[in-house]
Amino acid sequence: AADLAVNGVSHRGKVLTLDSMNPNVKRVEYAVRGPIVQRAVQIEKELKEGVKKPFTEVIKANIGDAHAMGQKPITFLRQVLALCSYPELLEDNMFPEDAKKRARRILESCGGHSIGAYSASQGIECIRQDVARYIERRDGGIPSSPDNIYLSTGASDAIVTMLKLLVCGEGRSRTGVMISIPQYPLYSAALADLGAVQISYYLDEDKCWSLDVAELRRALNAARQHCNPRVLCIINPGNPTGQVQSRQCIEDVIRFAKEEHLFLMADEVYQDNVYAEGCKFHSFKKVLFEMGPEYSSTVEMASFHSTSKCYMGECGFRGGYMEVINMDPEVKAQLTKLVSVRLCPPVPGQALLDLVVNPPQPDEPSYTTFMKERTAVLAALAEKARLTEETFNTVPGITCNPVQGAMYTFPRITLPQKAIDKAKEEGQVPDMYYCMRLLEEEGICLVPGSGFGQREGTFHFRMTILPPTEKLKVVLQKIREFHLRFTQEFS
Amino acid sequence: AADLAVNGVSHRGKVLTLDSMNPNVKRVEYAVRGPIVQRAVQIEKELKEGVKKPFTEVIKANIGDAHAMGQKPITFLRQVLALCSYPELLEDNMFPEDAKKRARRILESCGGHSIGAYSASQGIECIRQDVARYIERRDGGIPSSPDNIYLSTGASDAIVTMLKLLVCGEGRSRTGVMISIPQYPLYSAALADLGAVQISYYLDEDKCWSLDVAELRRALNAARQHCNPRVLCIINPGNPTGQVQSRQCIEDVIRFAKEEHLFLMADEVYQDNVYAEGCKFHSFKKVLFEMGPEYSSTVEMASFHSTSKCYMGECGFRGGYMEVINMDPEVKAQLTKLVSVRLCPPVPGQALLDLVVNPPQPDEPSYTTFMKERTAVLAALAEKARLTEETFNTVPGITCNPVQGAMYTFPRITLPQKAIDKAKEEGQVPDMYYCMRLLEEEGICLVPGSGFGQREGTFHFRMTILPPTEKLKVVLQKIREFHLRFTQEFS
Repeated sequence: AADLAVNGVSHRGKVLTLDSMNPNVKRVEYAVRGPIVQRAVQIEKELKEGVKKPFTEVIKANIGDAHAMGQKPITFLRQVLALCSYPELLEDNMFPEDAKKRARRILESCGGHSIGAYSASQGIECIRQDVARYIERRDGGIPSSPDNIYLSTGASDAIVTMLKLLVCGEGRSRTGVMISIPQYPLYSAALADLGAVQISYYLDEDKCWSLDVAELRRALNAARQHCNPRVLCIINPGNPTGQVQSRQCIEDVIRFAKEEHLFLMADEVYQDNVYAEGCKFHSFKKVLFEMGPEYSSTVEMASFHSTSKCYMGECGFRGGYMEVINMDPEVKAQLTKLVSVRLCPPVPGQALLDLVVNPPQPDEPSYTTFMKERTAVLAALAEKARLTEETFNTVPGITCNPVQGAMYTFPRITLPQKAIDKAKEEGQVPDMYYCMRLLEEEGICLVPGSGFGQREGTFHFRMTILPPTEKLKVVLQKIREFHLRFTQEFS
Repeated sequence: AADLAVNGVSHRGKVLTLDSMNPNVKRVEYAVRGPIVQRAVQIEKELKEGVKKPFTEVIKANIGDAHAMGQKPITFLRQVLALCSYPELLEDNMFPEDAKKRARRILESCGGHSIGAYSASQGIECIRQDVARYIERRDGGIPSSPDNIYLSTGASDAIVTMLKLLVCGEGRSRTGVMISIPQYPLYSAALADLGAVQISYYLDEDKCWSLDVAELRRALNAARQHCNPRVLCIINPGNPTGQVQSRQCIEDVIRFAKEEHLFLMADEVYQDNVYAEGCKFHSFKKVLFEMGPEYSSTVEMASFHSTSKCYMGECGFRGGYMEVINMDPEVKAQLTKLVSVRLCPPVPGQALLDLVVNPPQPDEPSYTTFMKERTAVLAALAEKARLTEETFNTVPGITCNPVQGAMYTFPRITLPQKAIDKAKEEGQVPDMYYCMRLLEEEGICLVPGSGFGQREGTFHFRMTILPPTEKLKVVLQKIREFHLRFTQEFS
């Protein structure tokens, strides 16, 4: 900071300025909550203050936030959380016995029988046991150990921690991390923050956003010129692209990771969100173990899950876990040490995770209601996935792959050259210009495709399919009208 | 990783090993949950399995975890949390109206009226408003703006985020951060992780762990030879040392920070934990503003608070906030962007924080019970602070400063030379050897002073004063007996 002498008094600039701050942080971008969302919040305030707009509410379809879109919490989960928060309710007759049983078990595993105590940094042991058993059931009996489970603050926390462990070296030896394009921008943000090298591999939009090993190899070989590629990140079901990978594709990816000596990070937070006929979720771990000991005893992997998605949509609780496989025991000790610095993941989120991996059973009183609520959420999502794809594909200039899973559609939009020129004039990338106009004119908040990455010269947006069906229909209709108007304006 | 050809098949080592992992992570140390705590957990398991020990339970006095030590949650806080978790309870008559009112207000500010929705990344707006009003009341009306409040996942999260923003440069230009010795090891761990330079300044044990500006200046001048000092961290009331800084001392520190162009980080999570006669908590912000505009409009500062300490002790909820003062608006935009990548702090922790800053008022139905519970916790802590100091000072070879505030005592122990030699033989630092022996022989888990830093040749341990009074008396008695036995053994 420069010294300025004014009237004999030394005046200095701030200690912390844009020029003197951490340059890696400056490079971080996170479009899901970027400028367009800030403008949406501002417009909401203006509406409240009585400013006239061509719409009466802002619909935020920018983020996978189910409850904010009106989805009701699952009764059983919230009953147990209330019991854990205020155990005096255990004496009451208003709660079913299975909810009380779960709450008692969680409380007994907490220090002083309170969810206000710190837990073990890796997470409460009996919850890690429940997670391991859940994974075993999911994967047809392939063993899972609680020692390999790390509970986390949402999945994001575990993903960033895992990347942090993996990044080292300088210059051409700096760790390279392969991520899909389009990607979920947590990955690019974390890599910028850590100063790691992003290696982009492209998903094939023409083949329903599928992943091709030849493209992985192309990206890897190109990256070897300037960094040390060590990590391959996969999101399945896909975010923002909504595809569900085939078993064959997963096998190919695992073989590639082994051949190329890469650590696999499998982001599987949408594992219960699969809608399309013929699609099925295959966990990377299950496929790995079915490929035999040559793979299952060598390929290093971490898989991530969360309480924020699926049928629960409990984003605010920040619950999640990661399972590590074939991790060097010395590195695991380092991981355990690293997570201990932050003491522990939020205990209410841990409790919630326990219920997700250990839900009511057929012989328990809450079973019927629980299953009814769960099925209704997933059936509505499947219906909305279909509706979204069908509607967009009737709009000239919008093409849309099936939403096989997850919670998003990532349609491609054709923009007239004049609109692209206009955006440049305004100093915006074209899809940001498009989305900003949509927000200002229709009150709908989407995220431009450029926030996730897309092939040069193509344009997209990400929209969640979470609004209630009737509202979703309105949203789709408004986007349709806007798109036609916008296209006409610039033709 | 080396390739080994066995039977024509290429075998390679792991991708991620101790040698190939992030070297900064390797340098991280966190004694509060280090090897001694891992051994304590192991001993607990052995006891459960029926292994005979000279004791029947392990008492973990290593961490400020009030509920784990038997402190009961404050009724009002937990009632509101239960209502927020399961809003059907709002229809019930079992909860007082003020609890319902708080819950309704929190739910109305949540997306979809659910604490399962993501909040704004900076935290729920109406809670940030409540925090700002709380700070204004605390500081006698000095204004506080919700725009300067960032809710966080415990205080640790905000401290690490703030340090991350501040660290830049390479070699001799690398950011240096001044921390007290003894310190809370989150600081040294975060600095190792970020690759920043730790600048140690020593607290004066002979003057009740007070802070002397001459010592700050000595440390700063020495550090200027090899790094770029930009940040000064203060913990008040002190952890692990329990001192409460005088108003004069705070003024001197602020003057020093201004003169030396340092960003101030004030860790004030123990602000409600002040016990000693004549001691009072003075917030850095209040003192800064009382020093006049020359200071209040220039010195950059962040202050941290948490729901984990004080009378609540709700560690598991991971609630907290930071207030930033005089931060460059462009940097604030970067901070907001950075926190958005992790989406939001846990919403139940935010709700809890709202209750802490907006507790029952004299005209509300929960007031009497709330005040009774709050006062009882703080009075018991004050009594235990006194008891701890008095007991330790009767033991030959232990000297102990008054526990003026916070939750810990950090007594100095005199170790015979033969014990120091024996520790070296065992490959342990002397106070770790002492604490391990205490754990094995008495079942008491403390943290060696070396985990916090101490002057060369001196030895200490940190013990929380949290065990219930009767148990604390036993703990103190056992430490006394152990210390005498240990000293005798090596004389």
